[in-house]
Amino acid sequence: MKTSLLNKDRLVQAGRKSGIDAFVATSPENVTYSSGYWALSQWIRRGPQAFVVLPVRELQASRILAPTSLLDQLADQDDVWIPNITRFGYFHMDTSEAPMTALDSRQQELYALPDGKNALNALIESIRKDGLESATLAVDELGLLPGQWEHLARELPRASLVQATELFRGVRAVKTDEEVRRLRTVATIAERSVKAALKQARVGISEIEMARAFHTQTVQDDATPVLGCIGFGTRSAMPNVHPSKATLQRGDVIRFDVGGRYKHYRADIARIATFGEPDPRVRKYHQALHAGVMAAFDVIRPGVKASAVFEVAVQATRKAGIPHYARSHVGHGIGVDGYDVPNLTPGNDQLIEEGMVMCVETPYYELGWCGLQVENTIVVRANGIELLHEDDGNLTVLS
Amino acid sequence: MKTSLLNKDRLVQAGRKSGIDAFVATSPENVTYSSGYWALSQWIRRGPQAFVVLPVRELQASRILAPTSLLDQLADQDDVWIPNITRFGYFHMDTSEAPMTALDSRQQELYALPDGKNALNALIESIRKDGLESATLAVDELGLLPGQWEHLARELPRASLVQATELFRGVRAVKTDEEVRRLRTVATIAERSVKAALKQARVGISEIEMARAFHTQTVQDDATPVLGCIGFGTRSAMPNVHPSKATLQRGDVIRFDVGGRYKHYRADIARIATFGEPDPRVRKYHQALHAGVMAAFDVIRPGVKASAVFEVAVQATRKAGIPHYARSHVGHGIGVDGYDVPNLTPGNDQLIEEGMVMCVETPYYELGWCGLQVENTIVVRANGIELLHEDDGNLTVLS
Repeated sequence: MKTSLLNKDRLVQAGRKSGIDAFVATSPENVTYSSGYWALSQWIRRGPQAFVVLPVRELQASRILAPTSLLDQLADQDDVWIPNITRFGYFHMDTSEAPMTALDSRQQELYALPDGKNALNALIESIRKDGLESATLAVDELGLLPGQWEHLARELPRASLVQATELFRGVRAVKTDEEVRRLRTVATIAERSVKAALKQARVGISEIEMARAFHTQTVQDDATPVLGCIGFGTRSAMPNVHPSKATLQRGDVIRFDVGGRYKHYRADIARIATFGEPDPRVRKYHQALHAGVMAAFDVIRPGVKASAVFEVAVQATRKAGIPHYARSHVGHGIGVDGYDVPNLTPGNDQLIEEGMVMCVETPYYELGWCGLQVENTIVVRANGIELLHEDDGNLTVLS
Repeated sequence: MKTSLLNKDRLVQAGRKSGIDAFVATSPENVTYSSGYWALSQWIRRGPQAFVVLPVRELQASRILAPTSLLDQLADQDDVWIPNITRFGYFHMDTSEAPMTALDSRQQELYALPDGKNALNALIESIRKDGLESATLAVDELGLLPGQWEHLARELPRASLVQATELFRGVRAVKTDEEVRRLRTVATIAERSVKAALKQARVGISEIEMARAFHTQTVQDDATPVLGCIGFGTRSAMPNVHPSKATLQRGDVIRFDVGGRYKHYRADIARIATFGEPDPRVRKYHQALHAGVMAAFDVIRPGVKASAVFEVAVQATRKAGIPHYARSHVGHGIGVDGYDVPNLTPGNDQLIEEGMVMCVETPYYELGWCGLQVENTIVVRANGIELLHEDDGNLTVLS
């Protein structure tokens, strides 16, 4: 039984609700999410493409369209659950006379498929071959190159094309068990990496050196560094602080807004430490921010509006000690993308659902003073939240 | 004096040659390359945008368009050489009464700029304000979202829009001194990381464990892991082999096709080791592949066609021991993108120029047997090549 990243029921439901016959994933996030296929060059560059076509009526008839140069990954990746493959493009592979492993035989099969020439041509041919040329196709516009949408419309005149990026985001919002497992693992790795970094705290250590300790732990735990905002003192007020040669001094705030990627899934947590006893205002403000997140936790459950969570968090933070507290959002979903839906914003009427994974956060940036932030990752259960890491973001005071 | 990643002369020359009044960078690679501005969310996600407008007549009048939430990075990044900034979008920042550092004052200035609302609106307004509404604009299509090109055309009816992604690639092909420094650093980090990984070789170590040692060294050297294809035995024949639980056995080939990112610049080198004395065919084939790269090195100099380098490398490899050797390319440029131009392909008439940085490679993948590969990074000098790392890719035999 293959693990599934894709929430199949939810995709089918979204398709039926919107009268969609098939989804077409094009962006790296949606290709990996919907098929389990991680196509290297699509992820590390802009331009290379891979697609997935998912017919709503029969998901098992889905098809992955992959560059010939990346077929090896299709054969080797355990997450791939789609048997139908179309390849495109030239790649030269020699073949031994020796007996083959199952993995090598599978690759040989894939290389022997007919060549679909290029990504878009292969997509059009597949749609025709799979009887979808008159269908309503929800195409993920985010992964198309300029002109490709128009090209599709021209070549498939009887099809009805609708944009799918937001639809995919809606499907991705409720996680499968396997996704929750990975999100828990990567959140825990982020937390452990913060602890490893803080062990290095000493007068004169630079942000770069502390970041090095952070990322080393992440790599030791088999995750990939992505987000590593680590700032000392007044630099901690920079929302996206990039580690510099600035050095740690007694009394400094240390702000982490960090998280890597593990088996395609992202982490994003924030932690605050002070190097020595904090200024009383730091302690008070941090407690207020923490109270804001805890108040959000108390109300998050299936059926609550995202905007209601925002209101509760902001009001609780104000009441607990930062009367002027203002924010555009107090959190967001997380998954294969660092920002999944729902966004916890004042205007968002979306309802919280069981299985959503979210980063709930109350950052406070005061230019010239410091930045403080609580950001925790949770999964929504039937009766409330479950934290996906050990700590809930209390202030760490280093001696 | 700011270091410049952008080859300013070459951009101006390309603009004059093609009758272009201004370039508009939109993809993360071209935004960072042309302005020195690394806009975090644009790099780690798909969707967020930042732009740069570069008037050919007066580059000093260039303008960066940045999300308000990423203004801190503009103020803090040493590579940014463009003084004109337009910000867009809402972001709440509190401000202390305390005296400010220069860095904080600069941020305060930036936050005080008028709000351009959103990326595309800010771009259109800037183009009008800077007197470019009737100009020929070369717009990097790769970083635009679907519909934005059409929107620009509609809102700037007197402007003439031409696609700029390939033009930018042409400009980026010849590196500045600062770029060569970074490319040398990151290539050296990749080489050092291979050595650190090979130190772990022992019977039963997994590919994952060896990759962990590889990436740990990369992070210790302040680079970010990107490419980490490491495969043992028959798995080494997978071009994009992703480290697995497969374990090392006596006699195995170990193939590395690897490289991180350092200060925005990519590495991509390949190295082969055998765990114990290699099968004679491994040794012979590897020597042939090495001879192919060395033959390419002998002919690479300014004025030579890319296709001629391809021919020389393939013929030399065949002659030296792999008579059936076939490839689609024997290398590519490298810079902020892992694949810059020129591509060393049979059909490419582009001339090699002084200052190009290229990965020259002769991979050989034999399904069921193993993969062997030599890939070295060089800069083109007036009289030939200069290697950007220590070794030239000889076979390492581990005892």
